[in-house]
Amino acid sequence: MYKVEIDKDLYLAILEPRHAQELFQLIDSSRDHISKWLTFPNKTNSVEDSLAFIEKSLRRLSDNNGYWAGIWYKGQLAGSIGFLYIDWGARKTEIGYWLGDEYLGKGLATQAAKVFINHSFKKLDLRKVEINVASENVTSRAIPERLGFTKEGSIRNYEKVNSNYHDRIIYGLLKDEWK
Amino acid sequence: MYKVEIDKDLYLAILEPRHAQELFQLIDSSRDHISKWLTFPNKTNSVEDSLAFIEKSLRRLSDNNGYWAGIWYKGQLAGSIGFLYIDWGARKTEIGYWLGDEYLGKGLATQAAKVFINHSFKKLDLRKVEINVASENVTSRAIPERLGFTKEGSIRNYEKVNSNYHDRIIYGLLKDEWK
Amino acid sequence: MYKVEIDKDLYLAILEPRHAQELFQLIDSSRDHISKWLTFPNKTNSVEDSLAFIEKSLRRLSDNNGYWAGIWYKGQLAGSIGFLYIDWGARKTEIGYWLGDEYLGKGLATQAAKVFINHSFKKLDLRKVEINVASENVTSRAIPERLGFTKEGSIRNYEKVNSNYHDRIIYGLLKDEWK
Amino acid sequence: MYKVEIDKDLYLAILEPRHAQELFQLIDSSRDHISKWLTFPNKTNSVEDSLAFIEKSLRRLSDNNGYWAGIWYKGQLAGSIGFLYIDWGARKTEIGYWLGDEYLGKGLATQAAKVFINHSFKKLDLRKVEINVASENVTSRAIPERLGFTKEGSIRNYEKVNSNYHDRIIYGLLKDEWK
Amino acid sequence: MYKVEIDKDLYLAILEPRHAQELFQLIDSSRDHISKWLTFPNKTNSVEDSLAFIEKSLRRLSDNNGYWAGIWYKGQLAGSIGFLYIDWGARKTEIGYWLGDEYLGKGLATQAAKVFINHSFKKLDLRKVEINVASENVTSRAIPERLGFTKEGSIRNYEKVNSNYHDRIIYGLLKDEWK
Amino acid sequence: MYKVEIDKDLYLAILEPRHAQELFQLIDSSRDHISKWLTFPNKTNSVEDSLAFIEKSLRRLSDNNGYWAGIWYKGQLAGSIGFLYIDWGARKTEIGYWLGDEYLGKGLATQAAKVFINHSFKKLDLRKVEINVASENVTSRAIPERLGFTKEGSIRNYEKVNSNYHDRIIYGLLKDEWK
Repeated sequence: MYKVEIDKDLYLAILEPRHAQELFQLIDSSRDHISKWLTFPNKTNSVEDSLAFIEKSLRRLSDNNGYWAGIWYKGQLAGSIGFLYIDWGARKTEIGYWLGDEYLGKGLATQAAKVFINHSFKKLDLRKVEINVASENVTSRAIPERLGFTKEGSIRNYEKVNSNYHDRIIYGLLKDEWK
Repeated sequence: MYKVEIDKDLYLAILEPRHAQELFQLIDSSRDHISKWLTFPNKTNSVEDSLAFIEKSLRRLSDNNGYWAGIWYKGQLAGSIGFLYIDWGARKTEIGYWLGDEYLGKGLATQAAKVFINHSFKKLDLRKVEINVASENVTSRAIPERLGFTKEGSIRNYEKVNSNYHDRIIYGLLKDEWK
Repeated sequence: MYKVEIDKDLYLAILEPRHAQELFQLIDSSRDHISKWLTFPNKTNSVEDSLAFIEKSLRRLSDNNGYWAGIWYKGQLAGSIGFLYIDWGARKTEIGYWLGDEYLGKGLATQAAKVFINHSFKKLDLRKVEINVASENVTSRAIPERLGFTKEGSIRNYEKVNSNYHDRIIYGLLKDEWK
Repeated sequence: MYKVEIDKDLYLAILEPRHAQELFQLIDSSRDHISKWLTFPNKTNSVEDSLAFIEKSLRRLSDNNGYWAGIWYKGQLAGSIGFLYIDWGARKTEIGYWLGDEYLGKGLATQAAKVFINHSFKKLDLRKVEINVASENVTSRAIPERLGFTKEGSIRNYEKVNSNYHDRIIYGLLKDEWK
Repeated sequence: MYKVEIDKDLYLAILEPRHAQELFQLIDSSRDHISKWLTFPNKTNSVEDSLAFIEKSLRRLSDNNGYWAGIWYKGQLAGSIGFLYIDWGARKTEIGYWLGDEYLGKGLATQAAKVFINHSFKKLDLRKVEINVASENVTSRAIPERLGFTKEGSIRNYEKVNSNYHDRIIYGLLKDEWK
Repeated sequence: MYKVEIDKDLYLAILEPRHAQELFQLIDSSRDHISKWLTFPNKTNSVEDSLAFIEKSLRRLSDNNGYWAGIWYKGQLAGSIGFLYIDWGARKTEIGYWLGDEYLGKGLATQAAKVFINHSFKKLDLRKVEINVASENVTSRAIPERLGFTKEGSIRNYEKVNSNYHDRIIYGLLKDEWK
């Protein structure tokens, strides 16, 4: 019931165990698209897997080390955005996100990312936000570029997704650079 | 940043680790009042204790077994309300709450409890909500009575708070009895 | 080998791992009867399940928080009785018990309960003993009523056993009320 | 309350958390004598240490791997006897025991050991019982010798107690050799 | 890559997870021979089992309580030798070893044992090394006898391997007795 | 006793608990120098801290996820080198290293790194080795540059060491690029 309302059609809420069914259905229906760049869909084969993911996310919140939220659009779960970790020593974090097929191209992830970035700098008093994207994932790279992030590195052979090795672009945004 | 907004002055949000300081200060400033009926203030002697409490609450949320939320009034943390557990077998829960000294008498707990009861029956599809109160805690007993709960029992020698043994009134509300 | 001898035919002994076979056979042979009011028979489908139950009971004893004993009648395991928990803060406990089909109607549970109540007040120095029974379980309710317990509450929708929701009667006995 | 009554003055009972105080006092009052051959008195400096020992013993019972019992004489805790482990593969066990100063010379340990040996062979269906004693501990060695054990080894430099390295005599008794 | 080179054909190295495949194959190909006196081959039915064994060995090394090394001969894993535990209180240890069928009779275990004994007395400053062998395992007993160990005991019914109960010879070597 | 001998003066060995004292003394004697770029010296204030570090390193080895080795020069512990993790999915690793004050300028870390890189590509069959260094740590950066690594990124505000926020240079070497 707890929400960040972005506009009348769009809100964010921390993923709770009761969202497991909804989350699994979204992943399952966009499986081909999402699993191209991300490893988790291949490990998500049942509602129980989504539930386990949510439980783990909340234990991270309990450890003050990030969590995943859902992105709801017109009453439907459309995607997810999260703080992958929070490094309280260096006061930085990394944001990740993904959307179901049919919710692409509406700016939902960009709007959600703005909320997370604002929260990082204004409430959590962090110094830096990173967004890391596979180098060939053009759609996803557009978001940090649109939001003024700096490209800080291009790391070769960073990860293996579906038998393909991907390079990784590291984008960074310092507090001073945000508006 | 995730909230249930009840009215322009009042909102609820799940307690997160970053609220530990605020929570400890509220408990510490209302210690005499709150510790009369509840045992936790005597075990809450530092911000670390409040942090540990919040961590435990979020691990319970991770287990789909309840959590504590904060009650914010005019921008200040005024009290707390929570699902003490969720019994998914019998589909019932118990709600607990407390307010700082200076926030009593404004109906804040009643309004927060209504949100929790609605959520229990409409979103969680539970069959019963209980509220249990020490028999001599007249202020707190007024809430379930005002909300139409039935007194189901008066359990003697239920708990020991500050060297006093208290009886406990069990109030119950079935789904059909809510509005 | 450690026993409380009640009379020449009847003794109690803490359940140990070596009793697992005997315990499972008793539950299995009285399954229909016992599972009417209790949830554990449905989760007890092998000797291993009974062994796991006994292991858990002994870990509770290790934590000074109750345990289950067997009731032996004429050399056969006839039923079980236990302290479900011991609340050392409020100095109270709850006693539970059940018998196999063919051992009903001989007063075995009543005699065993007396031993447990005496031990609670005289050795453990508790202030209160509770016995909680499903409201329609007339046979089991007879025991606290016969032993002078007070009916303190009738809690609606307390638990779900075999698809049925049961109300629960809470019976309490204070130290002063025992003999 | 569960006991093995050996004679009118002597009984054995599994050590439970409520015996921690009594156990600590016995150890503390016989500290010099007991710590000559055993290492645990030096690690037992408070009632909490004795409680931790008892908790560990009951967790071993839960694992079906032995436990410690108390030896009560004329209403006082006089010593302790235990199964140090039970090797269900090789079907053997080892018995250990000790007495407080003032309870020596009355045959209490011998009588308690007989109960344990009988139980090992007749109820637990073991094939062998061992008793291991420091080679210079003449008093304690007398017990297995009196009970018909065979000396199977003299292991050099077996353990260090109070800065002294002791050799260890291993005594064994097979099922067939017991009465 | 870390080794003790004994001669040009023979070296020892701590078993690491990457050796699991090689270890399993050796055990599997010598199963009949090795399982005559040792229990672990019957519990080793896949590479995963060997991996689990190696993981456990390294956690023991982490606890400063021994580990298993491989014996490589002419580039092939030929057997294994290990410190079964290290008793830092009594400053003693026990050495165990076994070889694959085709590597018997070349003195490999004797040479490896010498390295372990030297390390025990010279680097670890222990006072005693034990080697324990089933009494009928003549081949294995030859090693401590050849190396000057003293026979300290013959323990009856020590263990059960493949349905047979074995006696156990305990051999001991004190620091002063080593060269 | 297990070693990689690089030349007559230089060898590497996995750090074991018995090296804790030696490791602590090296860190303690070079504290100012090492703690300029690394965070661990500030958390290493006793032999126990070094022991805990070594225990953790060996548990990582047990998990097949890297470990730390010591670098011994002329019989003295001179520094340390390790695999910080092994990503078996993407088949890559990261190497870290440091030397005590008096061992700088002799090429010890470069020689040790070569051994680790060879092992990564030839024995572990990895595809990539990374070395990450604070951007202002010129001495340490010289090593990947000398060994032919490519600079893949310059990550701002990467970590906080001794109140200073450092940027981080990521160097990468692919298998094909190694000799």
